[in-house]
Amino acid sequence: MHLPQWTAAWVLLLHGCAAGQPPQAVSTRTDVRNCSADPPYLPSTATNTTARLAALRDTMRAHGVHAYIVPSTDAHMSEYIAEQDSRLGWLTGFTGSAGTGVVTQDKAALWTDSRYWTQAERQLDCNWELQRTTSIESIGLWIMEAVTVGGNISLDPFLFSIDTWNSYSQALHGSGRTLLPIETNLVDQAWGDQRPSPPSGEIYSLPAAFTGSSWQEKVAGIRQQMEQHVRQPTAVLLSGLEETAWLLNLRGDDIPYTPVFYAYTLLTNTSISLFVDKLRLTAAAQLSLRADCPGPLCVELQDYSQALAHLRLYAHGNVTIWLGTQYTTYGLYRVIPQEKLLEDSYSPVMLAKAVKNVKEQEMLRAAHVRDAVAVIQHLLWLEKMVPQGQVDEFSGAQHIDMLRQAQEHSHGPSFQSISASGLNAALAHYSPSNRSSRKLSVDEMYLLDSGGQYLDGTTDITRTVHWGVPTPLQKEAYTRVLMGNIDLSRLVFPPNTAGRAVESFARRALWDVGLNYGHGTGHGIGNFLSVHEWPVGFQSNNVPLTAGMFTSIEPGYYQDGEFGIRIEDIALVVEAQTKHQSGKEPFLTFEVVSLVPYDRNLIDLSLLSPEQIRYLNTYYETIRARVGPELQQQQLEEEYRWLQRNTEPFPLGSATTTATATMGVLALTSFLSTLLIGLQA
Amino acid sequence: MHLPQWTAAWVLLLHGCAAGQPPQAVSTRTDVRNCSADPPYLPSTATNTTARLAALRDTMRAHGVHAYIVPSTDAHMSEYIAEQDSRLGWLTGFTGSAGTGVVTQDKAALWTDSRYWTQAERQLDCNWELQRTTSIESIGLWIMEAVTVGGNISLDPFLFSIDTWNSYSQALHGSGRTLLPIETNLVDQAWGDQRPSPPSGEIYSLPAAFTGSSWQEKVAGIRQQMEQHVRQPTAVLLSGLEETAWLLNLRGDDIPYTPVFYAYTLLTNTSISLFVDKLRLTAAAQLSLRADCPGPLCVELQDYSQALAHLRLYAHGNVTIWLGTQYTTYGLYRVIPQEKLLEDSYSPVMLAKAVKNVKEQEMLRAAHVRDAVAVIQHLLWLEKMVPQGQVDEFSGAQHIDMLRQAQEHSHGPSFQSISASGLNAALAHYSPSNRSSRKLSVDEMYLLDSGGQYLDGTTDITRTVHWGVPTPLQKEAYTRVLMGNIDLSRLVFPPNTAGRAVESFARRALWDVGLNYGHGTGHGIGNFLSVHEWPVGFQSNNVPLTAGMFTSIEPGYYQDGEFGIRIEDIALVVEAQTKHQSGKEPFLTFEVVSLVPYDRNLIDLSLLSPEQIRYLNTYYETIRARVGPELQQQQLEEEYRWLQRNTEPFPLGSATTTATATMGVLALTSFLSTLLIGLQA
Repeated sequence: MHLPQWTAAWVLLLHGCAAGQPPQAVSTRTDVRNCSADPPYLPSTATNTTARLAALRDTMRAHGVHAYIVPSTDAHMSEYIAEQDSRLGWLTGFTGSAGTGVVTQDKAALWTDSRYWTQAERQLDCNWELQRTTSIESIGLWIMEAVTVGGNISLDPFLFSIDTWNSYSQALHGSGRTLLPIETNLVDQAWGDQRPSPPSGEIYSLPAAFTGSSWQEKVAGIRQQMEQHVRQPTAVLLSGLEETAWLLNLRGDDIPYTPVFYAYTLLTNTSISLFVDKLRLTAAAQLSLRADCPGPLCVELQDYSQALAHLRLYAHGNVTIWLGTQYTTYGLYRVIPQEKLLEDSYSPVMLAKAVKNVKEQEMLRAAHVRDAVAVIQHLLWLEKMVPQGQVDEFSGAQHIDMLRQAQEHSHGPSFQSISASGLNAALAHYSPSNRSSRKLSVDEMYLLDSGGQYLDGTTDITRTVHWGVPTPLQKEAYTRVLMGNIDLSRLVFPPNTAGRAVESFARRALWDVGLNYGHGTGHGIGNFLSVHEWPVGFQSNNVPLTAGMFTSIEPGYYQDGEFGIRIEDIALVVEAQTKHQSGKEPFLTFEVVSLVPYDRNLIDLSLLSPEQIRYLNTYYETIRARVGPELQQQQLEEEYRWLQRNTEPFPLGSATTTATATMGVLALTSFLSTLLIGLQA
Repeated sequence: MHLPQWTAAWVLLLHGCAAGQPPQAVSTRTDVRNCSADPPYLPSTATNTTARLAALRDTMRAHGVHAYIVPSTDAHMSEYIAEQDSRLGWLTGFTGSAGTGVVTQDKAALWTDSRYWTQAERQLDCNWELQRTTSIESIGLWIMEAVTVGGNISLDPFLFSIDTWNSYSQALHGSGRTLLPIETNLVDQAWGDQRPSPPSGEIYSLPAAFTGSSWQEKVAGIRQQMEQHVRQPTAVLLSGLEETAWLLNLRGDDIPYTPVFYAYTLLTNTSISLFVDKLRLTAAAQLSLRADCPGPLCVELQDYSQALAHLRLYAHGNVTIWLGTQYTTYGLYRVIPQEKLLEDSYSPVMLAKAVKNVKEQEMLRAAHVRDAVAVIQHLLWLEKMVPQGQVDEFSGAQHIDMLRQAQEHSHGPSFQSISASGLNAALAHYSPSNRSSRKLSVDEMYLLDSGGQYLDGTTDITRTVHWGVPTPLQKEAYTRVLMGNIDLSRLVFPPNTAGRAVESFARRALWDVGLNYGHGTGHGIGNFLSVHEWPVGFQSNNVPLTAGMFTSIEPGYYQDGEFGIRIEDIALVVEAQTKHQSGKEPFLTFEVVSLVPYDRNLIDLSLLSPEQIRYLNTYYETIRARVGPELQQQQLEEEYRWLQRNTEPFPLGSATTTATATMGVLALTSFLSTLLIGLQA
């Protein structure tokens, strides 16, 4: 899935722009709303927030708070959040995944990035100013205008990462206003009994067939890292939901698209405390966790709400607590004395999870074979249905979801499909709804970015297609996006290379002709976990690429108001075979595990180098070898023929003008033979 | 010139490793010295430091200091330093350009990076431990072992940048030891009257013909930036020597290879204070600086030693002082209250200097034409002399210096030439001396990295040559280094791209076969200023590339114990002509201004793509067009013919196997014509 510069909420506010991506300038666009008209004009999609704001302002007065900051994330810095955590959505009406609201007694403003400006204008009422930027500096300046010296600026410390807290603290430093964490969430108070209940579904153990190793082995591995660390940490604090799910081989359905559940874990050298709603654990899960009790491999089950108190108590001892500052909340952090902290950007669990072992790699490969079957079925179906005018963006998205659901080990989509036709595909984060959905047409390009959750792996793939006659620019841009995808996919690079040092290879073919794209080039992905799995990827805060990591590779091109292109594959970092070896460690390269051919109708072969064509043909051989048998086994004969057609090797000869001439040699030689034979005759 | 990962002293300790360059592991190598033998074995190159250490320890006792930290830089964080500032060299005997010494009452240790390990082993006596790392964390751990709790760790605050001070402060934080800045330099006390006198040469105005704009225009430009800045700074503090030299169009010869002089400048919105030994200013310089006195464009001349006192006084007022934290010393910084500081990595003067205006660009281009003449003369001379066994590394270096000296506007070399034959070229920072110099031979590769100071520009170029029969590996590695140089030089990229995002293009051809190099890919360069001019380049602390910046592009390859290759050119960032334009600003590319052909004997054409060959041929046409007339004007006819020979266009046809076949087409066609003619006859 398309990863914007800053997808995850806890990344959103921390990092600057990557190469070639200047900060979004403040727009001078006209708001869809007209709040100065009498009466104000609002689209029908706007939410009336007057009563909600009044309720929040009451609670603010009761707590002596002059400005209250409301983020879009939950206490685990999750990218997708449960309904009960949609505080910003409830308060503002804005349902975009990234934003920050600030409310004072007489003003209210929402900050969000360019992906969401139009959506915000359609969803906000006139109680809300829309601030078209996300910098905390800008939020700080707004607050200083709105709140007089001596005022209290407050927030829920469990909804802000350490790093984000520090940014607010710095923005208000020396301003005479106090940044005041209040553990009671004021929006929740205002929301009252209208707030959705917490999820109540089962939390279950992943069957051994779908785990890379037992949770006991994983715990042992982390404890070994603790022992070997120079600071000798006594505990690791896990507050990311995927951390606990991965470590203990547990899954749940608390969060849309991501099979995780609300939990914290404190893993010490002698104990394991899991903070969770234990009544929701299946009997099998309880058994798995408690088989070795008492002992160092006994998981002590404590209530989710006890995490903070337990941590505070633990931190009183002679301990050192290891945590990841990028996603641990300030609320937890501040109960640990500074000298007892071992701070890294990511916990050792986050880093261990990022490097898949051989079994995990095999599972992810297998999930991608079945996923390719569903995508191929879908592409064939579109080829037949679109010319009949039978498909729109919404039904297209529903159809791919349905096809994935039919595959073995399926567990639903891994994110809301981006199914976008024509100019809609130029909007970076477009998703269709039943109400507003464009009809697919042979006269437009169509972009489908979708993925599935399977018990053995998580998938994410984007294909862009055109069923009619693409314009020269569409064909050139598509081909150059593909060249970028190929150039990065076939890159050989030294061990310990940072993704940001190589992501430009995915851009160069576009740069050559003055084109570019404004989002990141890829992100990590999990085994039946998050579709955006940190800290793998090509951005500045990602860790160096290591064999066993999976990342998406997804260059694109977007022509405003016309069309959008993205070509996304998932790739595994593997050791490369090189002619020489200059260091101790072998060099690395990528093995693409997404197995769906690209649209031949959009490829201008004359732009490709012989190396790129050779790579493409080899990739297509792999697709045939791995997906062909699966299609046959599923008795999808028409799809099998479609695959064969669409993976025909490309002629090497048409790659360059000189190569075209090469074909001439053959023709000439053959003519010459004929001639000579004729002479001899 | 070869820029190691961390050349400038003030950069050395601040930054991690760039892409593909893992931190240097601590070596298990055997020391050249044998300090456990009885008597200890020391090479003749070692310096006896017993008396010097005793003198320093006396001063330490007098000041209650338990450990004293001695850096290798001066109070301006200069890369090259004057004799009087060679405190580390005097104290240790070690003359490498980067290192840190720490002395306690009974121990002494030197930290330096892998470039200098061998040199340090040869120069240190047994009073000194050699620590083969440069991390401040390691220095901190050593100090904590050597100094008991309660001890004072001291340093001269004028020899440490703000950022380096912070690193030491953090390394010792909470350890019970005090980090104590002492303004009296204890090494200077110990050095006493043996310490060389300060430089006393003239400080002169650069003639108007050699300046990009008048100093008054430059001052006005900086003041405009001050006015427009949201923080409304009232002053800019300049402590880098190039900052003052550039701003006021002054030059001097205080520092080897760099035409600068000891000075500080405090530029306020109403005044300009230059802290300098004013007796050394020429009459013309005085006149230039004081023509508009009194007034805002009057330069007030104050003694160099008064800078701190003046700054302290100024900081008492209602002021905001703008400075660059990467190179301003802690000694100056600490007299400015935090709320009166405007901190950026680089001052606006540093950033303005980095973007050359049209006249500065023209001057740098012109200097490179004359520099190319000298290098071509030298290459021809080597071609003739080396086979006769007449040249060694040292005489080779002397000869290029002499040739440059003969060119118009010459002002000596811009750094000590790296003239390295055979295995010596695999040492990253090798410079020959009269005592140890390898004879150049037709059986070995030879690497020459040298540059000149000219009144109109500073140059820096590396060429690697082989006069005999190179091995296949040498030829392949050379060609791949060249491919990297070409690929980066011809890259088209969006405005605002960071150098670190594109430097891998210079590595990819090597990466493809498992090779790499362990240094940075390039650095900025001045107009008759530093050969390493920050903050331009390809490292993580460099600013984004902008039209008007000059940078070196210098990939290499080093085969330990065998040979070394580097191909370095200076390139100007220019606007690119692209087929499309997707943003408001045009894309950028490089114009190479170094104008010396590469060694044809080392190029394996079959590895090059047609695009690379076309680029090379166009570059050679430029060399002919620009250097040819200059050679003729200087009546260097033999050199002119050498240039013509060495810039013959390469056949496009031999680029690839398919292209070889293309040549076959021509041959066949011609054969066919003959045949047909024969038939007709």
